[in-house]
Amino acid sequence: MSRTLPHHRACVQRLPIIRAMGEFELIDRFFRRDGARTADGVVLGIGDDCALLAPTPGQQLAVSSDMLVEGRHFLSTVHPAHLAHKALAVNLSDLAACGARPLGFTLALALPRADEAFLAPFAQGLFALADAHGIALVGGDTTAGPLNVCITVFGEVPPRQALRRDGAQAGDRVWVSGNLGDARLALEVFRGTLSLPGETFAAVRRAMELPTPRVALGQALRGVASSAIDLSDGLLGDLGHVLKASRVGATLDEATLPCSDAAAALDTSWRRTCLLHGGDDYELLFTAPPGRDAEVQAAAAAAGVRVTAIGRIDAVPGLRVRDARGQPIATASRGFDHFAGEPAPQAA
Amino acid sequence: MSRTLPHHRACVQRLPIIRAMGEFELIDRFFRRDGARTADGVVLGIGDDCALLAPTPGQQLAVSSDMLVEGRHFLSTVHPAHLAHKALAVNLSDLAACGARPLGFTLALALPRADEAFLAPFAQGLFALADAHGIALVGGDTTAGPLNVCITVFGEVPPRQALRRDGAQAGDRVWVSGNLGDARLALEVFRGTLSLPGETFAAVRRAMELPTPRVALGQALRGVASSAIDLSDGLLGDLGHVLKASRVGATLDEATLPCSDAAAALDTSWRRTCLLHGGDDYELLFTAPPGRDAEVQAAAAAAGVRVTAIGRIDAVPGLRVRDARGQPIATASRGFDHFAGEPAPQAA
Repeated sequence: MSRTLPHHRACVQRLPIIRAMGEFELIDRFFRRDGARTADGVVLGIGDDCALLAPTPGQQLAVSSDMLVEGRHFLSTVHPAHLAHKALAVNLSDLAACGARPLGFTLALALPRADEAFLAPFAQGLFALADAHGIALVGGDTTAGPLNVCITVFGEVPPRQALRRDGAQAGDRVWVSGNLGDARLALEVFRGTLSLPGETFAAVRRAMELPTPRVALGQALRGVASSAIDLSDGLLGDLGHVLKASRVGATLDEATLPCSDAAAALDTSWRRTCLLHGGDDYELLFTAPPGRDAEVQAAAAAAGVRVTAIGRIDAVPGLRVRDARGQPIATASRGFDHFAGEPAPQAA
Repeated sequence: MSRTLPHHRACVQRLPIIRAMGEFELIDRFFRRDGARTADGVVLGIGDDCALLAPTPGQQLAVSSDMLVEGRHFLSTVHPAHLAHKALAVNLSDLAACGARPLGFTLALALPRADEAFLAPFAQGLFALADAHGIALVGGDTTAGPLNVCITVFGEVPPRQALRRDGAQAGDRVWVSGNLGDARLALEVFRGTLSLPGETFAAVRRAMELPTPRVALGQALRGVASSAIDLSDGLLGDLGHVLKASRVGATLDEATLPCSDAAAALDTSWRRTCLLHGGDDYELLFTAPPGRDAEVQAAAAAAGVRVTAIGRIDAVPGLRVRDARGQPIATASRGFDHFAGEPAPQAA
């Protein structure tokens, strides 16, 4: 586990320092698991300057990195186990969108203090998801600082089989896994703009805090899907990235969008907000030629995930959504932006 | 470039948001360099869910991740180009300590605002060092948040040739590259505890802000050095990691420790603080059998770096430092700890 720039400590009087547990003890107690559960392909894990991985010869390496900041990507009240799950899940979701098999990950963690009440459940949540995917934490960094979780994941994929954003073709069907909108629905309840019965809220909160990365589905779609992306910024925004990269357009049928009963019960305006712009879904959005419908369904069945056809790719640029009567819905393609925040209202 | 959890934006009213430049525009303007200067082995860079790398078949993958936090790892007044250089340099230094050849890196960046006055020089400093090593920025993440720079580097190394911490043998010589202590000396000037003439300060400040990762030396030492580590936490602390991993001891000769004229001019107490405990040197500390002195010198000459023999590895555990007359110096092994801060004073 690498270290950095030790001696600027004089400049951080504002940070609470816990003398009882140091960085090395913290790593040993919560993040080192020598011998046990080391994943395939990990030659050397935590404890040297670098981790050493041995990818399968001939495979390409898929890499993704996501940084989660308190107050921006998670609520300060989130359970540490859920935070850890989500930080790893959003990275695994990127591997899934490439069709890559996960190998391992690094964790860089800035914490206001070395606090067992935080670290023990954080490590538990992290390793529960890592173990479910048979991958190891191979290294990283810990430091004092405002709470920040940065995970980098590594996976492997055969040459020229990675799912990419730029392969969608006119005539392809547009597919999505799972349900859309529940994470946004949960956020609106936290915001106080919507309310839900307790059990229903618990279910959508789970969608928001404990997303399931579609890793098996991504791998099963290699050679079947023509393009793929994971849904983090909302259906229309993320589909927009595919359309731009592939230089095509698309038409979606609103009535086909898969959602929970809770989202289906919303009024039209809120339902569209959650399903079309919601974000944080971590489902796979992908395209495939209609002639491969059976292969798509077989891949989904093998992965144990429901998939739904929601529209088609057009040669004509632009993104169109039709309602149940086939009428166009006016919708700006409002992807979220971490710096721009909410889209500015359009001029009348 | 992957994205995260878009819709928690309601919770960050305290963060200034710049509407003029969004995340995607920021990436396009400052961090995307399509076509140009793509490094060997990068199949797909910024712009999809994952980057795709093609490591040389049969090589192992070396991975390291370091997170730099404002106020803890760098001063708030540091030039953005220097911050970027250092954030990449400390990661490359970890690859150097493994003897790995750098392939690429990801950057996750939390910024209080999307500010061109910061981002333009930051990108310039980042790519200047990346280009010097022929590596590409392959992906990452940007978000609003307290300033935080997390870089993960990837390199490759032939199987069983990585330099590790656990290979030092009794009888080996202990070597170090370059000079020790200048970065700490610069910090003490910033702290106001020491003062230096302007030109001398400029030189040691350069050592602190623009360290040179010993990447070529690390690769040249493959098959020659028995162990290696990079000096981030101070000579005694980092040598302690090697001794612990290798289950050996060491004796160092203070008179042989290489340093600048500025450090040599310090009084004994400050000189020992800077050279033995200084930290932030980013030189390589390594061991090799005495019979390989000529190979060590040839490796150093090939890499264009001076190396100095500073002691020997002992079978007896413990770390001893002798002064110029051969007398033992009393010295606690004071490694820096990112949570414990300064070592607590020892009881009398």
